[in-house]
Amino acid sequence: MIRPRVSFFHATPSRSLGTLALLEELGADYELHLLDLAAGTQRQPAYLAINPMGKVPAILHQGALVAEQPAVFIYLADLYSEAGLAPAVDDPLRGPYLRWLVFYGSCFEPALLDRSMQREPAPAARSPYGSWDDVLNALTAQLAHGPWLLDERFTAADVLWGIALDWTVKFGMVPETPAIRAYIDRVTVRPAIRRAVEKDAALRAAKQG
Amino acid sequence: MIRPRVSFFHATPSRSLGTLALLEELGADYELHLLDLAAGTQRQPAYLAINPMGKVPAILHQGALVAEQPAVFIYLADLYSEAGLAPAVDDPLRGPYLRWLVFYGSCFEPALLDRSMQREPAPAARSPYGSWDDVLNALTAQLAHGPWLLDERFTAADVLWGIALDWTVKFGMVPETPAIRAYIDRVTVRPAIRRAVEKDAALRAAKQG
Repeated sequence: MIRPRVSFFHATPSRSLGTLALLEELGADYELHLLDLAAGTQRQPAYLAINPMGKVPAILHQGALVAEQPAVFIYLADLYSEAGLAPAVDDPLRGPYLRWLVFYGSCFEPALLDRSMQREPAPAARSPYGSWDDVLNALTAQLAHGPWLLDERFTAADVLWGIALDWTVKFGMVPETPAIRAYIDRVTVRPAIRRAVEKDAALRAAKQG
Repeated sequence: MIRPRVSFFHATPSRSLGTLALLEELGADYELHLLDLAAGTQRQPAYLAINPMGKVPAILHQGALVAEQPAVFIYLADLYSEAGLAPAVDDPLRGPYLRWLVFYGSCFEPALLDRSMQREPAPAARSPYGSWDDVLNALTAQLAHGPWLLDERFTAADVLWGIALDWTVKFGMVPETPAIRAYIDRVTVRPAIRRAVEKDAALRAAKQG
């Protein structure tokens, strides 16, 4: 299949490591554009013309912006469906797959932010995520089922969650339970993920050098 | 095509009106289960066994839970693809479509919550959405292009945003600019949306009666 190359807007260190890892897992044809968050290039007009939210990750593909990490994941994993990282639309795992990708941006990130800023969550009726324990318990219960978030099936959702749990555990934001540790290790030992982490480190080193 | 019926978990008044409207737009075969948020049925064991986050909307389909409104929308609009509310995977509008659905849960809702609670947004480097103005400007700029969020193409994203803007404008949380007012009107005048709003009102009346 002929597919136009993906333009990928990345910064290191940042959350967009997840998208870099996904691109490697998918064997995607991509061109990496590096932004420097410390220097504020993500808030300069040239980048705001691409992504008005001034955030990474973002991709340009077929002339269109795709931003918000769960959207980028859903888009890319369907685009490279031959990699098998996205359950098809008629697969019973499709719904849970979408749920866990969107849950990351709609619940986990807001919960993490309140926790890291030591803010009280909003009242339950208005909170998008309830309590930190609600989020962590839902995630932990899901991980108890099998090696991957969707039991036996490794998907793009594991790339997102494996990378996210890796850094949130490193920063002491998520508890390093044996189940979470084992899950992170299963994800990060994969050759494509290691390749992404090495590329990311090399970009960081080049920036500093 | 034979598709199993969708079990839809709803409450009124609540954000899950958006999903009710989408089900009507899609002409989906669904069974509605009403929860009573004021009575707390969403936090009782029977419902937590279905959705551990204790939130609506949620659907059960093919034995699986789909929760988080943007995920529910992506799932249902692809499932009922013949309704034409989801750009296909190879459509250049697919990426923007996913972006705006996920943006709702990852940026708009957190921004709305901070605003309604009069909390300062997090520092830009950590905030999922930057500032309230970033969110509103991105949305307003997008709506300036055409009658719908994706220009000429009406999609499920318009169902979500039309309903969300309707109630956030009513509550004075989003400014009622002429462009936003006209957009809301274009969405809410649609027969399926009116049908959903009427069904929702009837459910509320029955509850009170």
